Amino acid sequence: MIRRVLLLSTSKVYGSGYLGYCDAEIRAFLEGVRRLLFVPFARPGGMSHDEYTSVARERFAEIDISVMGLHASPDARRAVREAEAIFIGGGNTFVLLRDLHAAGVLEEIRQRVDSGIPYMGASAGSNVAGLSICTTNDMPIVYPPSFDALGLVPFNINPHYIDPEAGSKHMGETRETRINEFHVFNDVPVIGIREGAVLHREGGSLRLAGSSGGILFRPGVEAEELAPGAVLDSLL
Amino acid sequence: MIRRVLLLSTSKVYGSGYLGYCDAEIRAFLEGVRRLLFVPFARPGGMSHDEYTSVARERFAEIDISVMGLHASPDARRAVREAEAIFIGGGNTFVLLRDLHAAGVLEEIRQRVDSGIPYMGASAGSNVAGLSICTTNDMPIVYPPSFDALGLVPFNINPHYIDPEAGSKHMGETRETRINEFHVFNDVPVIGIREGAVLHREGGSLRLAGSSGGILFRPGVEAEELAPGAVLDSLL
Repeated sequence: MIRRVLLLSTSKVYGSGYLGYCDAEIRAFLEGVRRLLFVPFARPGGMSHDEYTSVARERFAEIDISVMGLHASPDARRAVREAEAIFIGGGNTFVLLRDLHAAGVLEEIRQRVDSGIPYMGASAGSNVAGLSICTTNDMPIVYPPSFDALGLVPFNINPHYIDPEAGSKHMGETRETRINEFHVFNDVPVIGIREGAVLHREGGSLRLAGSSGGILFRPGVEAEELAPGAVLDSLL
Repeated sequence: MIRRVLLLSTSKVYGSGYLGYCDAEIRAFLEGVRRLLFVPFARPGGMSHDEYTSVARERFAEIDISVMGLHASPDARRAVREAEAIFIGGGNTFVLLRDLHAAGVLEEIRQRVDSGIPYMGASAGSNVAGLSICTTNDMPIVYPPSFDALGLVPFNINPHYIDPEAGSKHMGETRETRINEFHVFNDVPVIGIREGAVLHREGGSLRLAGSSGGILFRPGVEAEELAPGAVLDSLL
């Protein structure tokens, strides 16, 4: 089993276009792929599945990859089974997971990734690649039947990771505090990936690509800064 | 039925102590109360129920109110039925709601508030006073059996409300975007209460007290700024 997984912290970084900052990683990761199954369920900003799929279609046309939206398939399970590569886009993680359950494709996606096809996720699509969505930043606007996720990597993701802001007067919890609270109730490691960073798994190899790095949180130990390029095979 | 409800945006504002900013509102609201049932389930920072109850006990001693922690009662339902006033403290809303379900006290709390005893909530304790916890800011670190909440007010709360930050380079959703996404899937009005603001219901009267105001979000209409002192009876 060679799992191929590319997890993006965000769809956009400030000042660049859709999936612009990680263009080189995506091109290398999808080398040879001609058709991509896009999952638009997370619906950022509440946009429609068709609109969101169009955004992805336009972007991937630049690298000669055609895009089909999973919502448009009359048989979602079959669409997954026949997919050459899967990309789950960002938006609201709760809406995404609820609709993955409703479409009945979670197990199919796992099996396809286990068979070696490339899986790409951005933001919410990265969250659902972890063991659970318990470290999403999103608002719980709908109730999914479970918080368990795809488990394509044996830890959780916190995308859009932001460091505590020195001198902030806001009393809401920092991201770090939230993840530490998660570890009061859970043992699963969490990788916070900053905007601009990308987590890349190839089988037994795991590397933090992109420019901005991340943080590794584990229960009971000090959080660990992860520099761009960090090798994380030991987490697999 | 005279529901008496005081919902605090936060436990602390910057530069003041625990429940310091809303001291006058609390004194007036709890006038005549001598014993307070404190619900420490939200466990801010993962602290223990005993530790959290001590924090509340110390604070309310200043106004001659004695505090009992609900966790310490051998019969939680009975403790609620006999409570003179209830205060649910802040922390993680998902942990709080899960543990309210586990203790089997949601219906008892509703009935007590319907019978006229004062209910006070801070942050997560304000979230659970709304129709659902779907507009919490918290991380979903545990899975509650439902997102439905106490419904002591016929709308949802977003505590610690913060306005979009002009010039931010972070691509994660603003609070406003998140609440607008909530309204793609839900019809319930949402009141965002800024740190320092307090929502006060006395039967058919609803007023926004405190210094910092809030925002009213309703599906399909422009968000509405709520000045300190705003009268919101029409939402009841």
